Amino acid sequence: MKKLLLLLLLAQAFQLTAQAPHTHVPQRAIRFPDVPGYLTLVCDFHQHTVFSDGSVWPDIRVQEALRDSLDAISLTEHLEYQPHKGDIPHPDRNRSYEVAKDNARAYGLIVVKGSEITRRMPPGHSNAIFIQDANKLMIEDSIEVFREAKRQGAFTFWNHPNWTAQRPDGIARLTAMHLQLIEEGLLDGIEVVNDLTYSDEALQIALDYNLTIMGTSDIHGLVDWQYGIPEGGHRPVTLAFATERSAEAIKDALLNRRTVVWYNNTLIGREAQLVPLAEASLSVAKAAYQGPSSLAVVTVRNTSDVEYVLQSRSGYTFHTSTGLVVLHPQGETELQVKTLEQLKEFDLPFTVLNAVTAPNEHPDITLHVVIAQ
Amino acid sequence: MKKLLLLLLLAQAFQLTAQAPHTHVPQRAIRFPDVPGYLTLVCDFHQHTVFSDGSVWPDIRVQEALRDSLDAISLTEHLEYQPHKGDIPHPDRNRSYEVAKDNARAYGLIVVKGSEITRRMPPGHSNAIFIQDANKLMIEDSIEVFREAKRQGAFTFWNHPNWTAQRPDGIARLTAMHLQLIEEGLLDGIEVVNDLTYSDEALQIALDYNLTIMGTSDIHGLVDWQYGIPEGGHRPVTLAFATERSAEAIKDALLNRRTVVWYNNTLIGREAQLVPLAEASLSVAKAAYQGPSSLAVVTVRNTSDVEYVLQSRSGYTFHTSTGLVVLHPQGETELQVKTLEQLKEFDLPFTVLNAVTAPNEHPDITLHVVIAQ
Amino acid sequence: MKKLLLLLLLAQAFQLTAQAPHTHVPQRAIRFPDVPGYLTLVCDFHQHTVFSDGSVWPDIRVQEALRDSLDAISLTEHLEYQPHKGDIPHPDRNRSYEVAKDNARAYGLIVVKGSEITRRMPPGHSNAIFIQDANKLMIEDSIEVFREAKRQGAFTFWNHPNWTAQRPDGIARLTAMHLQLIEEGLLDGIEVVNDLTYSDEALQIALDYNLTIMGTSDIHGLVDWQYGIPEGGHRPVTLAFATERSAEAIKDALLNRRTVVWYNNTLIGREAQLVPLAEASLSVAKAAYQGPSSLAVVTVRNTSDVEYVLQSRSGYTFHTSTGLVVLHPQGETELQVKTLEQLKEFDLPFTVLNAVTAPNEHPDITLHVVIAQ
Amino acid sequence: MKKLLLLLLLAQAFQLTAQAPHTHVPQRAIRFPDVPGYLTLVCDFHQHTVFSDGSVWPDIRVQEALRDSLDAISLTEHLEYQPHKGDIPHPDRNRSYEVAKDNARAYGLIVVKGSEITRRMPPGHSNAIFIQDANKLMIEDSIEVFREAKRQGAFTFWNHPNWTAQRPDGIARLTAMHLQLIEEGLLDGIEVVNDLTYSDEALQIALDYNLTIMGTSDIHGLVDWQYGIPEGGHRPVTLAFATERSAEAIKDALLNRRTVVWYNNTLIGREAQLVPLAEASLSVAKAAYQGPSSLAVVTVRNTSDVEYVLQSRSGYTFHTSTGLVVLHPQGETELQVKTLEQLKEFDLPFTVLNAVTAPNEHPDITLHVVIAQ
Repeated sequence: MKKLLLLLLLAQAFQLTAQAPHTHVPQRAIRFPDVPGYLTLVCDFHQHTVFSDGSVWPDIRVQEALRDSLDAISLTEHLEYQPHKGDIPHPDRNRSYEVAKDNARAYGLIVVKGSEITRRMPPGHSNAIFIQDANKLMIEDSIEVFREAKRQGAFTFWNHPNWTAQRPDGIARLTAMHLQLIEEGLLDGIEVVNDLTYSDEALQIALDYNLTIMGTSDIHGLVDWQYGIPEGGHRPVTLAFATERSAEAIKDALLNRRTVVWYNNTLIGREAQLVPLAEASLSVAKAAYQGPSSLAVVTVRNTSDVEYVLQSRSGYTFHTSTGLVVLHPQGETELQVKTLEQLKEFDLPFTVLNAVTAPNEHPDITLHVVIAQ
Repeated sequence: MKKLLLLLLLAQAFQLTAQAPHTHVPQRAIRFPDVPGYLTLVCDFHQHTVFSDGSVWPDIRVQEALRDSLDAISLTEHLEYQPHKGDIPHPDRNRSYEVAKDNARAYGLIVVKGSEITRRMPPGHSNAIFIQDANKLMIEDSIEVFREAKRQGAFTFWNHPNWTAQRPDGIARLTAMHLQLIEEGLLDGIEVVNDLTYSDEALQIALDYNLTIMGTSDIHGLVDWQYGIPEGGHRPVTLAFATERSAEAIKDALLNRRTVVWYNNTLIGREAQLVPLAEASLSVAKAAYQGPSSLAVVTVRNTSDVEYVLQSRSGYTFHTSTGLVVLHPQGETELQVKTLEQLKEFDLPFTVLNAVTAPNEHPDITLHVVIAQ
Repeated sequence: MKKLLLLLLLAQAFQLTAQAPHTHVPQRAIRFPDVPGYLTLVCDFHQHTVFSDGSVWPDIRVQEALRDSLDAISLTEHLEYQPHKGDIPHPDRNRSYEVAKDNARAYGLIVVKGSEITRRMPPGHSNAIFIQDANKLMIEDSIEVFREAKRQGAFTFWNHPNWTAQRPDGIARLTAMHLQLIEEGLLDGIEVVNDLTYSDEALQIALDYNLTIMGTSDIHGLVDWQYGIPEGGHRPVTLAFATERSAEAIKDALLNRRTVVWYNNTLIGREAQLVPLAEASLSVAKAAYQGPSSLAVVTVRNTSDVEYVLQSRSGYTFHTSTGLVVLHPQGETELQVKTLEQLKEFDLPFTVLNAVTAPNEHPDITLHVVIAQ
Repeated sequence: MKKLLLLLLLAQAFQLTAQAPHTHVPQRAIRFPDVPGYLTLVCDFHQHTVFSDGSVWPDIRVQEALRDSLDAISLTEHLEYQPHKGDIPHPDRNRSYEVAKDNARAYGLIVVKGSEITRRMPPGHSNAIFIQDANKLMIEDSIEVFREAKRQGAFTFWNHPNWTAQRPDGIARLTAMHLQLIEEGLLDGIEVVNDLTYSDEALQIALDYNLTIMGTSDIHGLVDWQYGIPEGGHRPVTLAFATERSAEAIKDALLNRRTVVWYNNTLIGREAQLVPLAEASLSVAKAAYQGPSSLAVVTVRNTSDVEYVLQSRSGYTFHTSTGLVVLHPQGETELQVKTLEQLKEFDLPFTVLNAVTAPNEHPDITLHVVIAQ
């Protein structure tokens, strides 16, 4: 994605603009391939607007989502924190959703109704999405509000459990209340990534308690400014593996833990989702021996935005690199493998260093190479 | 210069960003030198927020202004057009100003209280800025509202007189009502530039009726998207020539017609302001003859954002170009002048093609070259 | 061309290259459309290698030409100036040609045999190209050597008549010897552009004496370094308008004065060639009125590398610019024309400011606009 | 940092270049800090010119070296392979050195006399540098020629032991002849990197037989084209750790195995050199706790061209990344460390993934952090 953005940017830049500037939408789509059995849908389910403490009208969130090529968003206004209420008294907590929904309709962007349940720790902040009526979540008791959300069919997740305002050491840590929520089936997921932060401890909690691994922007200002979009940055998103492109299918994906988080060129997820995603991203575009040598020239195509940082686990050495191999995003990278003799096919096993399936655990993938005859 | 930057850029670009993206404010300041006797202050006095039909909270307008290095802004909400009033009933028409003012305080950005008087044609839309109380401008009569603005000490100007919604041929044209407003001293300026448009006819009206030449963004969405900021675009601004950096001094500049508009690499203004600005932008950094030849190598420094497109009016010809000379913005450009014999000093007169003092009239400037002894 | 180059450059740059760098040839082709009746062939007929005072073997000149997408080159070694003769005694003055010819064969690049006749002023340096045997040009008499070149069927031209080493005032000026050469039909063309220089006076001589207008790089070092190729620069070239892509047809074009020089975003040529080239570059891709208004939105496509700097000569004014209009190279630019009423078709006449047909004379072109029905 | 540069670049790019292109030398220096006790000198000791099978005159090699900011070069023409001998009969094998030496004098670039001993396998190709007279190396016997080189005081190394033309499997492998050369002290080093290739097996040989680890470009054409310089690539070089900037001190460094190879963002060397180099590159520019939290915000400055790819070995986790940390070259990167309590100082141990001290062995480094009081 970074590449294309810069390309378009430069295409525009190299001009003396005595003319009206171009106003079309630049290419900055977040792009991932589908995986066997599922569509890979790009979601950001934690965002704010002027309807709580954000700085934009919902239409900007829709435009940002379209520019980033998201499939689904949720505007999750704080139910309890309303700093603009002097100007926007709005009794209706569904209003942000409705404005966005209207705006999004023409574009096919999925808008999911959601709210942020905003409490001191415990349980801290949580999102309830796929709800029916945000107003009915105005409930003081912190357990009861989750029960109401669940009655509405919500998917719920704990926001920024590593937030230093609530956790001065930045360490995500469950409380008795969280355990109760989990036990009662009231808490489905946990943000392992929030905005500019990542939490190894939150990932471990997700694994230990079978929670959905979530990553969100929690954007309040502008996505472009917060994530350096013009310089090739990207917002954190949750990739949901869904059977179709619909709100229901996304909810099913979330409830069944089928997610991977894409954050700062890092993939975070369970092995069951992460390995198929990485392997769907990569394919051998060409493979042939160089002349009579036993040097196999293998062109690997990467159809994802990830710049994969791989460590070879092969017994073969490479002719143009150490075992540390970097695969360009949305492009092709040539590997030259010294296979000692000319083979008809062989495997290239790698560890993906910029992906984690648990703290400090990286998934293994294998590229199967078939030599062109 | 370009080369160096490109290389530095690429040296940086050549990176895997597994780290948190940088969030500091990029360099995109609009930069012009001061002129003899005056500071050159960069102003955008026509902007909208959620308090009328814009899509952002006022804090975003402040942040945009800081990124663009503006000296002064005004948030000019439509008094009569309030599409968000279902959500923001706000009886107080000064609210947008107050929020911005609070936000801007820490940064020294000047925020001027203003409002957009929003009428059918005539007189169409107009801004009143430097007012005391926007609420008191809620007056139905289109003349009376200007009288009230003037009682409050306002500077007033006609917005987008070329707007095709009100002028289907896009031609700015005065009506009897405008003539009355001008005659009574109720209308001070006229937008020659609004958003992505420029009007030769509006410029002619400004000259014919001694109105202040204004250029504004009239931004409703995001400045970055509307003007292609990442690609090197800039919002239209009014440069006000003021005796000090204060709201009062800017008002004095506007009332006394001391403005130049900067739009899409084009300068628009009266000769009395435009020529000093162009000449203040340009200086001879170095000048020497090449060896024993009569080829004068002259390095021209340009301390403005304008990429000057000049046509030589000199009797001398150039060694590296035709008479069409382009001076890089914020940089140096070398000219090689064939002076026929070695002179101690000489003049290089030019016409500035990307500046207008009247429709199809370009100002002349002169670079005085003194050869280093 | 500038755009594409940067695009490719950036596409490569945004990567951590733990892999072998890519070595493919970047896109930096000089691209111009053909004109009615002729192919537009891109030529550089003044270059040096180690076989006179250049710093590269001829194969590098071939590779540079391929990267620049030239159609034809000539390696014009100094017959009389051989600073490397201690290392390269080479009695055969055709050797440089032969090496290049062998190298170029596989690519279809046309290599023309040529030599530089290297004399003090008068007559200074001249090139004879399309010769049969360079060795036979080793003739002391400065007139006789031209006669021999012509006997071989040469096209001849005067090199850098503005060279300050031979003309300390940089002014191209004919001598009696030049007049004799012209009168006898021994001198066909003159360099109006050489390397980094342009000469108004040489252009006037070309017009006054009906000489072919030539522009060449006269490269001794590397084209990339001399012309800032990575930053979007281009070498000066002669565009020859030929009936087919062959050496013979190019020679016919040169002998019949059918050339335009492309130098630093400036076109230099006779009106008969320049206007068709500019008009072939430009076409109206789309044209429609904006809603019910009389604002015609006209998309102009530019299929040349020229960033055209135009001054409107139309009675209509524009909605997004003054009369100074810049058309992006290899791209589209939108003009908004205020035609006062909805027309079925209309003309947009312009003067091309960055083209000259004589000193300070710019050609006029007309874009004919037909509104889509 | 990236943003700022991008904007500055675009500010510049946004120009019509009707002027002469800039011809100054771009910034593309290879830059590494010195290490305790030694200067870090950047060397490329394997290059060709027209004096053997290269395509440029020696002056281009000097200019390339200056652009790359090399400290020392050697032009190592093939003694036995002279494809240009029809044009350059040159009996003197020292000629290439002499031309380069003359050219380099004004710039302070160190030029070392060298030659490539060009044999079939065994022993394949080898370089002898720091020799006295290349002509005396025209000796048929493959052992004798090394003895003569050593008599002249040479440093010798085996070139591209992984060359598929001589090793069809690309595997560097010693022969009896190599063992003899090593045993007699006639072979000092081995290319672990040559041009676009790297060899794990050559690295192992260097370690097993105590040979100097060498990396060279073996350039025949243009460095810019071969290594994608405009796109941010760099040629492979040998960093020599020398007591002063002189030919003698470099020779001493090479003879004493004090080298690190810099290839495609990878460092290759012995731990004794590699760890000090990495640690000299990195320093803690700032470190403070964020408010009352136990989140240490640590700014790491990297004064080398290496984009370090690090794996944390710390017990602490990070607030903005997994344990995979990338440090921008020639810039600063912020790390946020969760130290659980506020400490006065602490260590951050890392493994450097893009550096190898042996096949698949990465060096460990430690950043010591002292919190500002």
